[in-house]
Parts: sequence; C-alpha cells; structure tokens
Amino acid sequence: MSHAPLRFGLIGTGRIGQVHAASIAADPDAELAWIADPFVDGARTVAAAYGGTATDSSDELFASGEVDAILVASPTATHVDLIAQAVDAGIPVLCEKPIDLDIARVDALRAKVAAAGVPVALGFNRRFDPAFAAARARVAAGEIGALEQLTIISRDPSAPPSAYVAVSGGIFRDMTIHDVDMARFFLPEIVEVSAVGTTTFDPGAREHGDFDTAVTTLRAASGAVVTIINSRHSAVGYDQRLEAFGGTGMLQVANAPSSLVSLSTAAAVEAKPPYEQFFLERYAVAYAAELREFIKLARGEASTSPTFEDGRAALVLADAAQRAATERVVVAVDLG
Amino acid sequence: MSHAPLRFGLIGTGRIGQVHAASIAADPDAELAWIADPFVDGARTVAAAYGGTATDSSDELFASGEVDAILVASPTATHVDLIAQAVDAGIPVLCEKPIDLDIARVDALRAKVAAAGVPVALGFNRRFDPAFAAARARVAAGEIGALEQLTIISRDPSAPPSAYVAVSGGIFRDMTIHDVDMARFFLPEIVEVSAVGTTTFDPGAREHGDFDTAVTTLRAASGAVVTIINSRHSAVGYDQRLEAFGGTGMLQVANAPSSLVSLSTAAAVEAKPPYEQFFLERYAVAYAAELREFIKLARGEASTSPTFEDGRAALVLADAAQRAATERVVVAVDLG
Amino acid sequence: MSHAPLRFGLIGTGRIGQVHAASIAADPDAELAWIADPFVDGARTVAAAYGGTATDSSDELFASGEVDAILVASPTATHVDLIAQAVDAGIPVLCEKPIDLDIARVDALRAKVAAAGVPVALGFNRRFDPAFAAARARVAAGEIGALEQLTIISRDPSAPPSAYVAVSGGIFRDMTIHDVDMARFFLPEIVEVSAVGTTTFDPGAREHGDFDTAVTTLRAASGAVVTIINSRHSAVGYDQRLEAFGGTGMLQVANAPSSLVSLSTAAAVEAKPPYEQFFLERYAVAYAAELREFIKLARGEASTSPTFEDGRAALVLADAAQRAATERVVVAVDLG
Amino acid sequence: MSHAPLRFGLIGTGRIGQVHAASIAADPDAELAWIADPFVDGARTVAAAYGGTATDSSDELFASGEVDAILVASPTATHVDLIAQAVDAGIPVLCEKPIDLDIARVDALRAKVAAAGVPVALGFNRRFDPAFAAARARVAAGEIGALEQLTIISRDPSAPPSAYVAVSGGIFRDMTIHDVDMARFFLPEIVEVSAVGTTTFDPGAREHGDFDTAVTTLRAASGAVVTIINSRHSAVGYDQRLEAFGGTGMLQVANAPSSLVSLSTAAAVEAKPPYEQFFLERYAVAYAAELREFIKLARGEASTSPTFEDGRAALVLADAAQRAATERVVVAVDLG
Repeated sequence: MSHAPLRFGLIGTGRIGQVHAASIAADPDAELAWIADPFVDGARTVAAAYGGTATDSSDELFASGEVDAILVASPTATHVDLIAQAVDAGIPVLCEKPIDLDIARVDALRAKVAAAGVPVALGFNRRFDPAFAAARARVAAGEIGALEQLTIISRDPSAPPSAYVAVSGGIFRDMTIHDVDMARFFLPEIVEVSAVGTTTFDPGAREHGDFDTAVTTLRAASGAVVTIINSRHSAVGYDQRLEAFGGTGMLQVANAPSSLVSLSTAAAVEAKPPYEQFFLERYAVAYAAELREFIKLARGEASTSPTFEDGRAALVLADAAQRAATERVVVAVDLG
Repeated sequence: MSHAPLRFGLIGTGRIGQVHAASIAADPDAELAWIADPFVDGARTVAAAYGGTATDSSDELFASGEVDAILVASPTATHVDLIAQAVDAGIPVLCEKPIDLDIARVDALRAKVAAAGVPVALGFNRRFDPAFAAARARVAAGEIGALEQLTIISRDPSAPPSAYVAVSGGIFRDMTIHDVDMARFFLPEIVEVSAVGTTTFDPGAREHGDFDTAVTTLRAASGAVVTIINSRHSAVGYDQRLEAFGGTGMLQVANAPSSLVSLSTAAAVEAKPPYEQFFLERYAVAYAAELREFIKLARGEASTSPTFEDGRAALVLADAAQRAATERVVVAVDLG
Repeated sequence: MSHAPLRFGLIGTGRIGQVHAASIAADPDAELAWIADPFVDGARTVAAAYGGTATDSSDELFASGEVDAILVASPTATHVDLIAQAVDAGIPVLCEKPIDLDIARVDALRAKVAAAGVPVALGFNRRFDPAFAAARARVAAGEIGALEQLTIISRDPSAPPSAYVAVSGGIFRDMTIHDVDMARFFLPEIVEVSAVGTTTFDPGAREHGDFDTAVTTLRAASGAVVTIINSRHSAVGYDQRLEAFGGTGMLQVANAPSSLVSLSTAAAVEAKPPYEQFFLERYAVAYAAELREFIKLARGEASTSPTFEDGRAALVLADAAQRAATERVVVAVDLG
Repeated sequence: MSHAPLRFGLIGTGRIGQVHAASIAADPDAELAWIADPFVDGARTVAAAYGGTATDSSDELFASGEVDAILVASPTATHVDLIAQAVDAGIPVLCEKPIDLDIARVDALRAKVAAAGVPVALGFNRRFDPAFAAARARVAAGEIGALEQLTIISRDPSAPPSAYVAVSGGIFRDMTIHDVDMARFFLPEIVEVSAVGTTTFDPGAREHGDFDTAVTTLRAASGAVVTIINSRHSAVGYDQRLEAFGGTGMLQVANAPSSLVSLSTAAAVEAKPPYEQFFLERYAVAYAAELREFIKLARGEASTSPTFEDGRAALVLADAAQRAATERVVVAVDLG
C-alpha cells in the first residue's frame, strides 16, 4: 500500500494551526504544501519551519491544484464557507471545532455535505487521546457491563481574556462542546439536556453575560446519564478526567501526572507537582493520531474520524445546554 | 465537668438501632436505660447485650421517668409522633433521617419544635465522618479559596429489595437525602434544584416507578454548584467520594481502601481488593461521633448536631429533586 | 465450644502492658484476673480500668491459682525468668519480644521450654496485622509465583531517648528484630546475614556506639533475598511497608493513610496528611488478633502464634546483623 | 550563540546506536555525518533514515575529517580503543557504558584521558531522565534535609539470552552498573560495598555462574546508605523506582504509568495496565537530553555529562559488588 504523501493545504496559522503544521510535517504520509493566512507573516513562518508555499489568500491555496486535503484552523466564522469551498472542490477537509456558532448556518450546509460525498472531518482531538480512546474501547468490549453513568470533569487552567469571552459563543459552545462530543463518543444517542451555569469568579464572564462554571447533564436513549463538570479555571492545572460507570465495573481516566516524583514531609505526604500543561501538551499525541485518521479518511480507507454530523450534534447539544442554563428548563433534543 | 452518664431510651432495634445501642454502651458519658420495640424480642436481645430495660411500648419508655434522652431508630412513619412526644416530654431527641416522607407532616411539627426549645437532632451521620468533616473544616479554613463546585459520588453496593423500594419514598427521599444534607454541610443556602433520574438495571425501581440512577444538581446562593451522582448499585462496592473545588485548590475525599495490599502482575498492576463494606462499617466512627455530639446538645453544651431544620431542608431538597426528575423542570427552593 | 473466659495474669503495666490489658478486657474469651507490677500504682490503675487484682509481686500472681495464662510485658531482663516460672507452673505464656538480649540466656532456657510442652508464644504483633497477614497468605496461595525478593521498610517516627539507646541492645536487637521476624514469617529458613549500620543524625546512637540507620540483607535457603531498611526516625511519620516480589507478580503493603482527604493546589497536587500514628495505633487490630490467637494456643487449639523458637531465631538473626555491621563480615547462620 | 550543527560520527548501529542516530537527527544542533559498523548494512540503513555516510570502517570515519564528535555505541570490547583513538584525534567522544569489563584496561587509559583534555563522556542515560534529575535537584536544594538512605529498585522485564549472559561480565557489571552510577549521582563518594547475589529462576545465569537476583548496599562517606535491588526479570514490566530518604522528608520516583486508565470491578479496584515498556521507551527523553548535554560539553560549554571518571567509578563499584557477592566479604573502595 504505497501512497504518495497527502499534500495538505493549511488555512490558519494560529496556535492550533501551528500544532497541525507540525503534525503534518512529522507524518510520513503527509506533507505541507500550501499555508494560507490573511496575516501572511504567520503563513510564512510556518512555511519556513515545515515547508510549503505561503499565501495570504485561501482562494489561491484552493486554486493551486496542489493540495489533496484541507485543514481548516482559521477563526470559527470562516469554517462554514471553507468547508463548502472544499466540498465544492471535491477536496477532503478536516475542520477545527466548532463548525459555526450558529446552528442555522450549520444546517444550511448540512445537505450539501451529505450529498457531495466529500470527506468532512471535525477536529474533536480528544477522541484520539490514548487514554480516552482506550476507555471507550474497553467499555465497548464489555469490561464494565452496560454503561450507566459517564462523568466528565473538564477544567481549563485559567479563564480566557474578556475579549475572547465576548466572541466565544459562551462556555457551552466554546468549552463544553468538547465534552458533549466526548459524551457522544461513548453514548451517541443523547435525547435530553439539562444545565446549570453560574458566574463565580470571572469578571469577563460577568461582563458578557456568560458563565464561568457549569454543570451539564445529558440523558441518553439507553437511560444512561452523562454529567459534565466545567470550570473556566483550575488552580491545580488543566483538569481532564473521565469516569465510566457500568453494571459490572468502572473505568477511570486520571490526569496525566506532571512528574513521577512525589514529596513526603512532616507537612504532607505523597505530594506531586501541579498539572502544568494545557491542551497542546496534554493532547499532543492525540493531534497526531487525529491527523493519521483523517489521512485514512481522505484516502477512502476505513476511518474513525468524527464527521460533520458529529460536529453538528455537538453544537445542537451545546445550544441546548445554553438554553437550559439561561431559561432554567430541561431541553429535549433530536440528533437524528 | 463531671456528669452522670446520659440515660438513653432507644426506640427501634433494627440494624441501625443496634448500631446506636452499641455506641451508647461504648460511650462513657452514656448508658442504655430503656429499649422499646413492638417486636419485643429485638428489644430484649439488645438489652441482654448492652443493658437496659426492654419493652414493646415506647409509651412505657417515656413514662418510666428514667430516660434523659431519646434515640429514635424506628420506621420512618413513626418519627414525627415520637419527636412530638419527646418534645412534649421535654426530653432531647436524636432521630434517624428522614423526619418523614411527607413535608406537610414535617411542617406541621415545625412550629412546635421551634417553640419548645427542646433539642432535636437529626441522624445525618456522614457529617461526623472524619474525612468529610476534615474536608469541610479545611474548606472553611480557606485552604481552597472560595468553594465553586462540590461533587458528591454516592453509590450503594446493591439495590434494595423491591418491597423496600415500594415504601422508600423514592431514590431522592431515601438515598439522595444523605447527599443533599452533605451538600448543605458545605453550602447551607441552596436556591435551585435540577435532577435527572433513569432506570437502567433495577426491576424493583421499574416496578414501582422509581429511578435506580440519578444525577442532582443544586445551585447555592453563592453561585457554587453541587453535583450529586447516585446509583442504587456499585459492582466495586460502597462508593462514597467527594470533591470540593475552589478558587485556589481542590480537596478530594477518596473511598476508604479495603486493604493496604495491592497486587501487580503481568495482567494488571496496583490492583486492590474491592470496597466490600457498607455504611455500618464505612461510617462506624461517624456514628460514635454523632452520638457524642448529641450528648453535648442534650446537656446544653455547644454542639454541631444537625437540627430539625436541617432535616426539613434535606426533605425539601429531595422533594424538589423528585419533582425536577419526574416533571422535567428546574425547581426553585426557599429553605428559609 | 463454650469456654469460660481465660483468666489472664498480666505482668508489667507500661505502655505495651496497657495495650494488652485493654485487649484482654475487650475479648469475650478473656478476662483480666491479676496484674503485677513492682510499680504497684501502675497495676492498680490498670485494675481500676479493666478489672482484676493488683499486686507488686509477680510471685503473688503466680501463687494465686487464679490465672490460666500469663502475659509478660515487663522489662526485657525479666522475660527469661518469668517464662521459666510459667513453664514450671504449667501456665501458657505470651511474652513480649525479645526473649532476652543475650542469646546464651535464651539457649539456656530452650531445652526446658521444648521439654515442658507448655505453650510459650512470642509477641511478634506484626504477623497479625491484616495487611501483612494477607500479603503472606496471598504469597502462600501462589499469587506471585515463587518468592524471590522481600523488601521491608521500617522506620520509627523519632529516635528514642539516649538512655533507652544505652540499654536497648542496639538497633538490630531492638528494632530490626521485628523485621527479621517478618522476614521469617514469609521465609522461615534464613541462612546468611549481611548488614550495614551508620550513624547519620542521632547523638544518642553516637554516644552509645549504636547505629541510627541500618540496612540488613538476609539470604534464604531458597535463594530468595530479603532487604530490611531501617531508620530510627522518619519525618513523614511511622513508615511500615513491605514488597514481596515473585516470579509472576508483586504484592505491596502500603502505609495506612492518615486520612482519606487529599489537597491539590497550585503548589502541589494530591497531598495527604503525614502518617501521624505510631505502633500502638498502626497495630491496634494486630494486638487484638495476637491475643485471640494466643487464647487458642493456651486452650490447646490449632494456633499460628509465633513460638519460643521464633523468638530465638529472631535474636540469632539480630545478633548476626549486629556482628555483620560492626565487624564488616557476612555471617552464616543456622537456625535449626 | 549561533553554531553550526555538530557533525557526529556514530560507531555501532545496534539497538542503542539507532536510538542515538534518531536523537542526533532530531536535534537542531547536531547532524549525522558518518556512520560506521562492520555490519555495513546496519550503517547503510541508519544513513538512509537519518542521513550521513555509511562505512564498515571506523578508521575511515575518523579519517574523513568530517566529524566534530564521536558517539561510540559498538560492543563493549571496542570502547577503550575507540576512546583512545578519539582522544588522539582530539575529537570529543560520548561512549556507551561500560568503558570496559576489565578495570585494568580502563586504568591503562585513564592517564591519557586525563592528560589530553579532550571531552570524554559516558552514556549513563538515566541521569538525564526528568524524574531522576528532578529528584536529585530537589535533594540538592535541601527539600528533604540531609540524605540518609537511597533505595533503588531496578528490574528488567525479562532475563537476557544465555549467550548474552556468558559475555555480559555478570549482573553487577552489566546491570547494576547503571544503578551504582545513579547512586553516585546522588552520593558521589562511596567507600564500601556489600552485595548478595542469588540465582532463583534463570537457567542462563545458572549455566554461566552468574546471578539473576542481587541486592547491593553502598556506604557513602557521609554515612548515608544506598540499597540497590536488582532482578533480571519482572512480570509486571520494567521496574525503575527510587526513594531518597532524608532528615526532613522523602522523595520518591514512581514507575511511569503505562496508561491513565484504571479499572475497578468486583474482583479488584484501581487496576492499571502493566508497565510494558523497556528502556528505549522509558528513557527516550533521557537519551535526547543526554545528547544535548554532550553537545554542550563538546563545544566547551558548561555541561553535566558524566565523565570518564564516572565511568571508571561505576566499574570499580560493580567489581567490588561482584567480589562481595562471590567471596562473601565486605569490600572497601577508594574512588579517588
């Protein structure tokens, strides 16, 4: 099965775009062919580090005829148009989450994507984390019997700047969206959403009517219940845990230890350094695995890449959580 | 401060009554004076083991003039009348939870209790567990800054018999009531309740329209959010954990290890025996501490015993959770 | 199998004598009949708390005709004579370790004990700790295959007073003696002893030519190697761990957690309180189990109580370690 | 500080040579210029993957004039001559451990190395492991007071082939040599060595008069005692732990978890997958750090690379342990 490396067109060279550029450069089945960013210096820096042609125009990238796959890492507002453009061009696309903050725009694109048959994958990187993937595989293998409760704790190290909060779409669409996708990774059929959001510490959240603290509960068609516990900050560092509770056992995913060294003194024993890393470090392996799986998808091979429909479902659930938290209601959802 | 031992009248000699009998016998400041149970053989067995006079009539116990304090461990339906009788007699009373399954009956008793000035304590034993008590004290001492999220995982080893489910008042009034009291131990002022209940495995729950799986979220006046995760069964044993997440840190209460021994083999490493015990073992120390604190209350000393109002608040919250789960609504509560 | 409680004569009412008095009083198969201590106030205090007749003369205790079993908790120098007296009187005896600091005196008693057939048990309490006992039973059950390496870490919270060091017989006879018995609990046939002792912190040890830090290695007839790591102090608290390494797995005995609560902050995560307790707390359950097993022995039932021969073997090994450490030699031993 | 990349000549392309080739290729300050191996296909494969010129002759490599540094990863018997050749050529050299199995040959080279002033580093990779390095730095920073006891557990996953055992120099020179260097990383001045070696499971060790199980104790000039526990196999996987015990605390280095996922069932709780990896995976980061530090050394910058003298000291200690274990004596050593 000898393939030429897949030639990638990368759109967007911010923090996450740089991660993807490095993954593409490191993968023997991929190469970085074109890099587009209106802030062309960003594109040029990436090209200098990892190869490829830099441009300030994604249209030029599409027109080059030299890309076999598109990776969209530009601002959220551009995602829908870029996916549409890739689909029209017949080029497989891996797009960062979310598809859009407006479900109407997502739904307007839905039929086109479904009809075109061009692979569209969504960047839910956590599905590719070895620990979460192993937990899910072991649940599927029946190690804990029927899955009854899924608990996800997901806390960022610190709240984003107020300016970011203003355009983020709110904690549910910006942060919880990852966790509802993780919920669907284990339990795809969610039928009901409840949520509580409060503002306990972040002036930015308060200023923009957002929450900094949230608990979301999802009811699955099977009767299983998912609990998602979010905070925009965590003094102990990036906090990413999961517990799958089943009829015959329980699988727990712990935080990655920041060090193998623990200290015991007369003041405290077995103390470890805090979890210092953030998602780029925590999920470094996951980003590479995500890319490899997308390469399979782009080549028409069997692939577990999350799809456009997964991206839409996550937004539907995030919207429902937002409504549940603000209107104090329980929201039935239909992801079909 | 030399006192004569407090003479206890114990009403009810089932499993929990026997625990209290043993605690009373072991406490140098208490003695078991009278034991009443309509099933008089139960009373006699307890009297033989721990001393005191056995009777089949709680009226005889009250009339003896030989009890300084009442401990009510009889069926729930008898609690309101026995508390009233103790208050009328001017005898301090420690009553097992819940006060009643019907808030109307509790409220009917409320004014009398408030007016009488006779100490009435509720048996929320978990407040006296050294681990939970330490966690709460350390939160109060500011070790984690402002408390923002409290997560309680509480799962019983196995579902009760169907006949018990039928009269239990439902999972929220029977099981979650302990956890909402734990929530109020950390955050007394709860203002809103959401809940999801499902039936995933227990035929008894299904038969009686109850849930076997539940997630309850409470919003505190401070903005803090409490999440309570319940299951009627747990393959890994009695599962009682708590996580207090604050602005500057996190306190976690783990399950008590069932053994200090762990096994590592080529199949798995660091495996420990399951948590075999149930509440009588897990909270043995707590029951003794609960009794000591009630003795102080009965003697008019400063005491942290949970009060009648705490018992009422727990029932109000359990009722709200029940309504939230069955009617799919968010319920505002006023515990004032 | 209805027995009258075994009437105990307790000799010695220091710290460890008081522990045994409490265990005897709490065991339904035992009662405290006589208590002897030349410091008669100690005997009287114990009698007041737990019952029995106090005397300043162990001869009076023996002459009373009212004791079915002797528990020797007096100073080491009195052990040999008291065991001999009990054997002559035909009364089963449980004697605290060590039998004596002088192997010649132990050997002089050996034939009498062997000939008399009167049960003589030694107070190696750690054999009765649930964790160590479980580890040994699981090794015996083959859970880790053939036992190849046994590692024992045993550190006291703080060094004893210099005056105690002076008469202690040295760290090996005073402290390591417990650990060599634990070694023999797993691997009875020890054939060779090496030891390194140093003085790193304790002025008392330096003053009296003793060590405060020691590592002892034992070679078993099977080829298994035991490593014992001792320190007279431990800033983190009483440190009592064991690791049994076998051909197919490993069993580890951890320290008992001082609390179920852990704290995570920006400075350190998962920190627990220090191990505050010492042997009276750590081995409380073991002392009670030790007594129960001795009661069986005294009654002629099957029993796992360590014997006089176990007491002698431990002293032989401690002597060998002392010689190995001071003379810088490897010492062959014959425990036959 | 702009440098041209250091041009490396790699000698030896076995398993460890390939690790170094990858590290050189990945380091922006290094490049693989020449690769020599008598088995020239090995050299060619490495050259194809990472660049450089392949040869079957290390002489050709030295003669090329195109290498700024030598990395020796060839069989042990060639190390002394290759170091000598590099020193004569004035080229810095990083040599895998051990320098030689014969201390006489090492000592014969010693004066030349000392006189030449050419950097010679030894490949004690574990010093560069982040966990061990952090533990040592924290000991040096005084976090646990004076270091009193150092315990190193080091067990390989499975015994090497009998043919390897035959030429390995024995467990102490082949395996323990890493651990005595780790001991010297914390406590450079070792003055005495004891050791016990036994053969409990490995036919290869038995056939060649070697041990498969060993415990080595080292006494440091400070009075601190080091214990090294080795086994040639470990059912639970590669077992690499360290405990530094000091006057005010303790630092422990745990095994790297093989997964963040743990499983709890009715049979066992908190069970994790076994430690599957071996040194190439466990110390992957360490090899890269080792190389970076050697590049500094080669450039004349401050460096913590272990030196020829460290390599010699490790062999002296391994020799002493071998003698202690076979002759049953305690061996004084002088590393000066």
